[in-house]
Amino acid sequence: MPATNTPTALRLNGAVLLQQLRDLGEIGIDPVAGGRTRVALTDAEKAGRDRLVVWMRELDLDVQIDRIGNIFGTLASAEKDASGEMLRPLMMGSHIDTVVNAGALDGCYGVLGGLAIVQAFREAGLVPSRPITVAAFTNEEGARFHPDMMGSLVHAGGLPLDEALDAIGTDGARLGDELVRIGYDGEMIPGTLVPHEYLELHIEQGPILEAEGLEIGVVENLQGISWQQITVQGNANHAGTTPTRLRHDAGYVAAAAVAELRRIALDSGTTLATVGTLQVEPGVINVIARKAVFTVDMRDPSEQRLAASEARFSAFLTTIAQDEGVRISTERLARFSPVVFDAALADVIEASASRLGLSSRRMTSGAGHDAQMIARIAPAAMIFVPSRGGISHNPREHTDDEQLVNGARVLLDVVAQRLGAPR
Amino acid sequence: MPATNTPTALRLNGAVLLQQLRDLGEIGIDPVAGGRTRVALTDAEKAGRDRLVVWMRELDLDVQIDRIGNIFGTLASAEKDASGEMLRPLMMGSHIDTVVNAGALDGCYGVLGGLAIVQAFREAGLVPSRPITVAAFTNEEGARFHPDMMGSLVHAGGLPLDEALDAIGTDGARLGDELVRIGYDGEMIPGTLVPHEYLELHIEQGPILEAEGLEIGVVENLQGISWQQITVQGNANHAGTTPTRLRHDAGYVAAAAVAELRRIALDSGTTLATVGTLQVEPGVINVIARKAVFTVDMRDPSEQRLAASEARFSAFLTTIAQDEGVRISTERLARFSPVVFDAALADVIEASASRLGLSSRRMTSGAGHDAQMIARIAPAAMIFVPSRGGISHNPREHTDDEQLVNGARVLLDVVAQRLGAPR
Repeated sequence: MPATNTPTALRLNGAVLLQQLRDLGEIGIDPVAGGRTRVALTDAEKAGRDRLVVWMRELDLDVQIDRIGNIFGTLASAEKDASGEMLRPLMMGSHIDTVVNAGALDGCYGVLGGLAIVQAFREAGLVPSRPITVAAFTNEEGARFHPDMMGSLVHAGGLPLDEALDAIGTDGARLGDELVRIGYDGEMIPGTLVPHEYLELHIEQGPILEAEGLEIGVVENLQGISWQQITVQGNANHAGTTPTRLRHDAGYVAAAAVAELRRIALDSGTTLATVGTLQVEPGVINVIARKAVFTVDMRDPSEQRLAASEARFSAFLTTIAQDEGVRISTERLARFSPVVFDAALADVIEASASRLGLSSRRMTSGAGHDAQMIARIAPAAMIFVPSRGGISHNPREHTDDEQLVNGARVLLDVVAQRLGAPR
Repeated sequence: MPATNTPTALRLNGAVLLQQLRDLGEIGIDPVAGGRTRVALTDAEKAGRDRLVVWMRELDLDVQIDRIGNIFGTLASAEKDASGEMLRPLMMGSHIDTVVNAGALDGCYGVLGGLAIVQAFREAGLVPSRPITVAAFTNEEGARFHPDMMGSLVHAGGLPLDEALDAIGTDGARLGDELVRIGYDGEMIPGTLVPHEYLELHIEQGPILEAEGLEIGVVENLQGISWQQITVQGNANHAGTTPTRLRHDAGYVAAAAVAELRRIALDSGTTLATVGTLQVEPGVINVIARKAVFTVDMRDPSEQRLAASEARFSAFLTTIAQDEGVRISTERLARFSPVVFDAALADVIEASASRLGLSSRRMTSGAGHDAQMIARIAPAAMIFVPSRGGISHNPREHTDDEQLVNGARVLLDVVAQRLGAPR
């Protein structure tokens, strides 16, 4: 065993954590496809919430639901502030909603990892020096309701509650109605529980840690994200009779844009650009596409470089629209600036990994996470563990049990450091 | 009136032709979308067939249906061959099936134009020197059953009858069963009526005649057509966490192929290349496409240049599959070599246009037509009239009445020349 100065009484119960990950992963599972589907505020996700609340109550946590359906389980501390109020909690969390046909780890690992920390305090009979809150935020995935990371965004004051409640899902349902339907329309005003600090344990969802043979990612920042939907309006015409120079081919323009995005990514060196959806109409083999609609996902850890990549792409669209005689419209779907996590917290995470003998590297989160929202109102940082093949949002999402336990051990060590000597 | 030496007794009745185009165009019409839908062997197309047969019988034609459902209406001649058999007919025709939400002219103009020629003989009380047959070929469009141009292909011996009858439609129906259901499973063996010559009157379905302000297209050849379906198999991965160099992005590869096809078209100068269908999977904004499927429509009047363009595209796919680490498979959907129409017939068409004072040009047909199949068994050529905006396969398909009548006048003049002095 590596040397450790985590308070000796605090020991991570890896078996419980792994069992809870498996148990939660069974809820909404499709035995044929192999993945589980707990899209936000569906019956399956309600079942996941119910299970989580049972586990929180088993740990004798104070469970609170806010009006956007975020779930908070708090382990009280003995200390109060000068006016006798509860101290701001150290918060850990993530989400338990999933995309369609998901893995078992995305989000759940951060929530259940938080519970594992509480479990360690309970098993050691220790009371933390400030409260510990485990949070599960509503609709992080955005698979049914936009925007994604909604619960943490509302919690951080970045989106008005009423606007979030009025979100209409892909199935036509209103989010507020669905919260009532599943019984998670809580009473607490969002943002009531402002954390003292926030930690999120998560699978990397990317290939870097595995590729470099490392055990822990110390996430010091998070890429800015730009989502756009581009609509190209051209002219449908016969594929066999329309000379190339007379074409207004929406499909070609979309393809040229995809190719340009690759050049933008390569030239920038840091921007990632992805076209994940692309439809052409009318979609007939011998008819030039009248219309093409595609989405652009651009990310960069630097706001300046992200904005530069967006600007270059926009200029490209303007030029090609003129050259090809098509109309191009752009709809912004989401835009988040890069987030720099708390440097002190990152240092502590790195020191904890080192103390536990685990290899680590500083890294940037490529994906969006609730931590980026909470970073608006409190010091925040994240801990990553490897994702096999970088695969996520897929039944093949996998992290070895040992790696999962190691990540939680780092989290426990960090919490122990931050809460000082527990009593 | 321009000078003409069309036998003076033969006069085209433009009013009947235009009225029949309107009447047939009403069958299967959608008053909301504005187009008509008479997909092959549906109830609506049966109604169109029934109307055509009534018109043929009104002209006292001998109506024959063959086993693939081709309809032939023949005006007999007085002359027989040496053995007392009917002479091979001068055949005119096209098709009356449509794509979904089509215009009223594509195909129908060639069939009803043929009837207009017979009408002129009837009205003049003239008997032609050899039989005149008006043909409507089954399933030219291929909107429901593959391959397209099926009836003329079977007639010309290019596709076994049984194979055609066993074609399964997009709705799961078997073509042979549908022929029986609508009562057009005729008894005549396909290919029985070998034409002496074949003429097809058609709208251009392209923009050239309109752009050049010309009235008649003398179609001297028809492009070769290559249809392929390309499937790219990459890896789905997270858009935010997968470095560009580690991506196997099926969508990007498809887009690069579309861009390459544009370069192939421009470099060749004669090849046309169109990607009309393109799907990516899973089709999620923040997931790199695992799979892309798209079709390629390539055409060229030269077999050598068409093959060269195909080869260049194939080499591109091989290279990019290696570069991007994806698997690419190619399925050939259709391949027709270019067709050179009968030079003597083209000369006669050009002379007739000139004699009637109509402006014309030699041109290549970009689209496929029944004439290309019949050209396998008889001298064949086509006459084009302008298409407004080059638009076809669309309710906005349009040719001015005067232009439609002019095209039929050219056809009548050609027939009069070919059949010698009618008696």
